[in-house]
Amino acid sequence: MIAEIIAAGSEMLTPHRQDTNSLFLTEQLNDLGVEVAFKTIVGDNLTHLTNAARTALARADIIVFSGGLGPTEDDLTREAAAAALGISLRRDPEILAGLYKRFAARQITMPPNNVKQADLLEGAVILANANGSAPGQMLDTVVGKYRKIVILLPGPPRELKPLFQDVVKPLLASILPPRRLARRMLRMALIPESHVDARTSPIYNQYSDVQTTILAGHGEIQLHFTAAKSTLEEAQSRVDEVANRIEAEMEEAIFSSQGESLEEVVLMMMEMRHLTLSVAESCTGGLLAQRLTAIPNSSRAFVGGAVVYTPELKMLFADVPREMIELHGAVSPEVARALAEGIRTRTGASLGISITGLAGPGTAPGKDAERPIGRVYLGLADGRETLIKELNLNGDRDYIRWWASQNALEFLRQTLHQSR
Amino acid sequence: MIAEIIAAGSEMLTPHRQDTNSLFLTEQLNDLGVEVAFKTIVGDNLTHLTNAARTALARADIIVFSGGLGPTEDDLTREAAAAALGISLRRDPEILAGLYKRFAARQITMPPNNVKQADLLEGAVILANANGSAPGQMLDTVVGKYRKIVILLPGPPRELKPLFQDVVKPLLASILPPRRLARRMLRMALIPESHVDARTSPIYNQYSDVQTTILAGHGEIQLHFTAAKSTLEEAQSRVDEVANRIEAEMEEAIFSSQGESLEEVVLMMMEMRHLTLSVAESCTGGLLAQRLTAIPNSSRAFVGGAVVYTPELKMLFADVPREMIELHGAVSPEVARALAEGIRTRTGASLGISITGLAGPGTAPGKDAERPIGRVYLGLADGRETLIKELNLNGDRDYIRWWASQNALEFLRQTLHQSR
Repeated sequence: MIAEIIAAGSEMLTPHRQDTNSLFLTEQLNDLGVEVAFKTIVGDNLTHLTNAARTALARADIIVFSGGLGPTEDDLTREAAAAALGISLRRDPEILAGLYKRFAARQITMPPNNVKQADLLEGAVILANANGSAPGQMLDTVVGKYRKIVILLPGPPRELKPLFQDVVKPLLASILPPRRLARRMLRMALIPESHVDARTSPIYNQYSDVQTTILAGHGEIQLHFTAAKSTLEEAQSRVDEVANRIEAEMEEAIFSSQGESLEEVVLMMMEMRHLTLSVAESCTGGLLAQRLTAIPNSSRAFVGGAVVYTPELKMLFADVPREMIELHGAVSPEVARALAEGIRTRTGASLGISITGLAGPGTAPGKDAERPIGRVYLGLADGRETLIKELNLNGDRDYIRWWASQNALEFLRQTLHQSR
Repeated sequence: MIAEIIAAGSEMLTPHRQDTNSLFLTEQLNDLGVEVAFKTIVGDNLTHLTNAARTALARADIIVFSGGLGPTEDDLTREAAAAALGISLRRDPEILAGLYKRFAARQITMPPNNVKQADLLEGAVILANANGSAPGQMLDTVVGKYRKIVILLPGPPRELKPLFQDVVKPLLASILPPRRLARRMLRMALIPESHVDARTSPIYNQYSDVQTTILAGHGEIQLHFTAAKSTLEEAQSRVDEVANRIEAEMEEAIFSSQGESLEEVVLMMMEMRHLTLSVAESCTGGLLAQRLTAIPNSSRAFVGGAVVYTPELKMLFADVPREMIELHGAVSPEVARALAEGIRTRTGASLGISITGLAGPGTAPGKDAERPIGRVYLGLADGRETLIKELNLNGDRDYIRWWASQNALEFLRQTLHQSR
């Protein structure tokens, strides 16, 4: 069975706003063994929306609409679905009573427009929405000779997500053939995609029943494996077999064998060894600290650090000698070393990491003017020795800052790995 | 004229990857006065892709494909477009020669697969791709009684974007009726969307020739205005008229009247007054510093600061007394004040900002256990007085951290604004 997702809303046809619900819906449908074959984004226009609904009915078995269930004139999904199916809408007294109750509870008079939220496709079941006034609806019907399942969901993610998970998913699971999907993700950092593919494709190509997707971006390669079988155990064992063989092939290049992020992995490694970390960031300006502290309970291993954006702050918070900066420039292996050692000593952490570099655009003052944009030095101090790494990155400011932070995390991970 | 954008690629039908080219393409098409009415995402499947192409030809005047022009078996856009149009592909000798030359220049033998990149829709013009091996193509034709413009573009953004901007846009501008689009964006922070709409809709509703879109998210409201006229001057004057009236209505709530970000605005305000800033961040862990340093030349006003994640670092880098943390908790107005004053004094900056709060999940130790998750205190010290602000935010860790940083920036902006 294949599905089409139709996102309704004119704001998603501007240069400013994306449809994001479809990523969640795709994952949920995949869980049920349903493949998403088409996604359509269409504006709040009855002709266009009806056209999209008609097209979807002709090419997909399950059609999921998101958005357009509100009370305004622009909310046309119910009308379009009815028109495409050639059926009528009837005002449902149960939904209507619920709407009046909802407004009464908040001591507001219901605006007359809202009654259209009680319109139900003939034969559809109501999908109760715990987080908004618009209920969803689902119609299991036959068009021509084919079974079609049409699902209407509200657009706001905080309404759509719980509604799908708690109401739609169990309902679909009860009427679809039992197919269970297993997933696994392996993650690697800072390794070329072509390199990963050359080494892993001879393995994953042997598994025609496991779908493998390689995604690259932001200094990371993800290998996604999915398999659908009649039981979860069977699906999981296929996925695990290929993933385990690829883990054995790629060895320590893989930082995550169950999908954890690079930040989570380094925090976990440090926590297990009772190590703590502090950072001194220049060109990344807090990005590394921000990534680490985005993880809950990061304080078990991460103590904090300093954003040493100016020469003065490098001296103040990490005891870098002024003469060193004047002689070698702030973007130098010497200053990277002094920053890592200085922040470690100052904060009393077991490990100190530093990042100093040129993110551009424009030229740097003093000695740093001699270095190219994209030159970054990392320092990693543990009290016995200090490792230094030079990076030469190509890209804009955002790119250089992100890759510098990614390199710092991977540098830390590999160093921790080797010192086991 | 209305357009449909078709993004081809199975990875965009997984839960992991979005189509992003369409935002850029929408902006570019809008510039030419063309409205995007449909976006379709379809996998690397000839039947599905041909179906999508056929549907688009029936409902749009301009059809833009992105992706599926590579050399592999999965690259099927040329074949699908030809099938939908009922025309054939012919191998173009000029493209073929270019392909051989391209590979020869890199001293690689061209793999036999690559010859299919020379296949051109009958009657199409070649769109030279300066950044990749797959050229684009454009066909200006008639299907039934209707003029249809079909454009095939490579998927990688760094190929698609320059190709559209440098080649397709001038070509389309020369064949489409002259319509010029003007845009303007006003931005506001931390104000409810309903409030903005109630105050601004009586104004923008008077301008039926200016399209107004309100977007809300991440603690910000954006008002986008666009107008299309036969000259840019005429379009701009309409957009400016409504934007200026709304600026007069919303006054200081608007932080940006030409689209600048909140970070850019506060940095600019400080630079103009020769003020400098340092930060002491606890729960946001570097996020505020990271946002400020993402802006080029932020060092003209931002000196850096400290990520004071543990009590010890609050003492070490911002001179907060231990007894104060024990007595009031780290998440307290007292500690927010001490952090802001301490980081300002330590770094010698004109202004010091602090953020301390509970981002969750889980409960905090000591006195902080008494505070709810989402409680955040901001401090802003200028050497004469220190302002404190209490926030009570509802959401997950990412949400609380983002809104705390957004509130800190807006707090700073409003304080600078009032002290003019």
